[in-house]
Amino acid sequence: MINLVTLGKAAKAAARQLALLEAPRKNEALYAIAEALEQCGEEWLEQNALDLAEAEAAGMRPAMLDRLRLTPERIAGIAAGVREAAALPDPVGEITKDTTRPNGLHIQRVRVPLGVIAIIYEARPNVTVDAAALCFKAGNACILRGGKEAIRSNRCAVRLMRAALAKAGLPEDAICLVEDTSRESAQELMHLNDYVDVLIPRGGAGLIRAVTREASVPVIRTGEGVCHIYVDKAADLEMGANILYNAKCSRPSVCNAVECVILHKSIAEPFLNLAMPLLAEKNVELRGDAKIQNIFGTQVKEATEADWDTEYGDYILAVRTVESLDEAIDFIHLHGTGHSESIITADADAAERFLNAVDAAAVYVNASTRFTDGGEFGLGAEIGISTQKLHARGPMGLEELTSWKYVVRGNGQVR
Amino acid sequence: MINLVTLGKAAKAAARQLALLEAPRKNEALYAIAEALEQCGEEWLEQNALDLAEAEAAGMRPAMLDRLRLTPERIAGIAAGVREAAALPDPVGEITKDTTRPNGLHIQRVRVPLGVIAIIYEARPNVTVDAAALCFKAGNACILRGGKEAIRSNRCAVRLMRAALAKAGLPEDAICLVEDTSRESAQELMHLNDYVDVLIPRGGAGLIRAVTREASVPVIRTGEGVCHIYVDKAADLEMGANILYNAKCSRPSVCNAVECVILHKSIAEPFLNLAMPLLAEKNVELRGDAKIQNIFGTQVKEATEADWDTEYGDYILAVRTVESLDEAIDFIHLHGTGHSESIITADADAAERFLNAVDAAAVYVNASTRFTDGGEFGLGAEIGISTQKLHARGPMGLEELTSWKYVVRGNGQVR
Repeated sequence: MINLVTLGKAAKAAARQLALLEAPRKNEALYAIAEALEQCGEEWLEQNALDLAEAEAAGMRPAMLDRLRLTPERIAGIAAGVREAAALPDPVGEITKDTTRPNGLHIQRVRVPLGVIAIIYEARPNVTVDAAALCFKAGNACILRGGKEAIRSNRCAVRLMRAALAKAGLPEDAICLVEDTSRESAQELMHLNDYVDVLIPRGGAGLIRAVTREASVPVIRTGEGVCHIYVDKAADLEMGANILYNAKCSRPSVCNAVECVILHKSIAEPFLNLAMPLLAEKNVELRGDAKIQNIFGTQVKEATEADWDTEYGDYILAVRTVESLDEAIDFIHLHGTGHSESIITADADAAERFLNAVDAAAVYVNASTRFTDGGEFGLGAEIGISTQKLHARGPMGLEELTSWKYVVRGNGQVR
Repeated sequence: MINLVTLGKAAKAAARQLALLEAPRKNEALYAIAEALEQCGEEWLEQNALDLAEAEAAGMRPAMLDRLRLTPERIAGIAAGVREAAALPDPVGEITKDTTRPNGLHIQRVRVPLGVIAIIYEARPNVTVDAAALCFKAGNACILRGGKEAIRSNRCAVRLMRAALAKAGLPEDAICLVEDTSRESAQELMHLNDYVDVLIPRGGAGLIRAVTREASVPVIRTGEGVCHIYVDKAADLEMGANILYNAKCSRPSVCNAVECVILHKSIAEPFLNLAMPLLAEKNVELRGDAKIQNIFGTQVKEATEADWDTEYGDYILAVRTVESLDEAIDFIHLHGTGHSESIITADADAAERFLNAVDAAAVYVNASTRFTDGGEFGLGAEIGISTQKLHARGPMGLEELTSWKYVVRGNGQVR
């Protein structure tokens, strides 16, 4: 038992104060945080170097080490992100409904912060600042529980941010760090129902599934992306090949990258003849079903059942043939994670059927799945891509970090 | 292990079909359901009589028996409720954002059903129909798990509703009943993550807390109401007494009834002198703190610590004195359930401070807490009052039974 109750109480108390702040005070604090992170960048880099050395000695993979690493440029980018959060419009206080009832009651629905947002994440020190800034801008306190490999980096970042808050006369406990990075601390956070209004796990599929299964606090699932592109029989194949290349190769490690292309049987061969030279530029490994293997032989590996449910996050692409649009939709229903799904077609009816029937946060016609992103959608910075249907779906920006309350003004009304 | 997977799969498949239905087809089916419930009312009453006889023999309390009981009038009321759901505007398909990005991508945010909604509730057969009708209207399949005391009534109602759906050419599995009413079936439903998009517990505080603690599927907490009225030093005392009488006595068993009145010390005595004769009409038992007891002696019982956290649901009222508005706000923060909170005051600054600082689904000035209700707010029928901040807060109407997806139309865009 770590006992996070003290931390939870402190965060809750800070959240009550934050909820009453006007936008300019929050923005000043965010600018002060950005400045502190830059001015004390040396210190932050030193702590990060200690984390890196230990992780490297422990045999961390290069891709993971890269995510853990801070550089002066990355710190500048992180600070710029905090300033961007400050520049976004404040969602709090927005009146989303306004009505006067026949009995004279004046009823408004007013946007308010969620309260206390907990975030469990892996060894990425940038998340510590990005998440804290977005939560704070929307008037929420946050409880951060990052990976143990980044603990020194996180401790330093949180210390700098809290000092900036204190200097601005605001409650430090608006940004709280769980310094104990044992499994037990994550467990306790998942059950801190009296103090945590929502928990957002950020990281790999394993982390997200474990948190979803176990938490009793409300959870928002983000970032699981087994995304598909379906190339219809009526597709512009060249456009399709370019979109597939972009969706697979522009950044394969992110959740909106495509993992599987579904091909109508009638265009499978000519389409792959166009797409394979493009994919070969990045040495993309293809794993196909029997039909594809029959056509392309050893150019395509054999896909196993597990391939259809795998988020590779790498230069690997599953290839599946179908007999019809409906079979494609059923396949996506069975194997998709509800993230981003695209159809390539010139047939307007097929497009509408796909857009209506596919159940995902974002459904596309004739565009890359890579656009599922707060910035690309014009929503501003986001804390993740929600793949669940409750509360938030798709990019989770500031609005999705709020709730509402009904404010009712009367002059003696009784029922 | 009951194995609800088959049921879950059936509901999920039905939900996919429902999501594509136009409003008129859904409404026709709802009218057919209302008619079937009325036409076969005798059958439903017979099954209900068997439930009642068994419950009475088992010693069920009269208030609970009354909730279990169907009558011809109640059936007519339930059927009318179904027709009202049919008459409400369909939320599905509403476009809530619409933008064209500089790259030409046309992005719409479109309202879609949540999918499969599970409801765990107690021995109230009306909930079986009310919940099914609202879920269906918003395009959702439902899995109903009612109390064992009402199983015959529920089986009959669900059979009639499913037959009406089948006759209308719609999937019967849009309305599913868990016929096993053991504790295990509720447990399994709480962990049916692959098939349940949201679980709504409806019933007493014990049920709701147990479900919230245990479920791994997303839950919406509804209907826990320890509501307060704070009478400020600047209050119109007569108005306050009338509001208090209404909030306590008009229907004490419901969640928006007031359980505790908080009195500024300067008006405690004159206020209670006005309010007590009103409350005496209903023999309301008062439980007060030491100050109140000192003034009123044996007219007021001694409140224990437990009283401040109790939802009486009865003609009992806790009475607390405070030194200031801020003390009242802190008291509500500590003991409220985030449902409905009201201040009685003629001081506009005090009113605004209360409305801003109190964290509840509905905050009132100079009105009864009893108005927290979908119909009273002009939102139409509701499935419950959410006391959590995620997804829905306050009355949960049709809109709150939906999610959204982003529909993106392009002509070859890549990132």
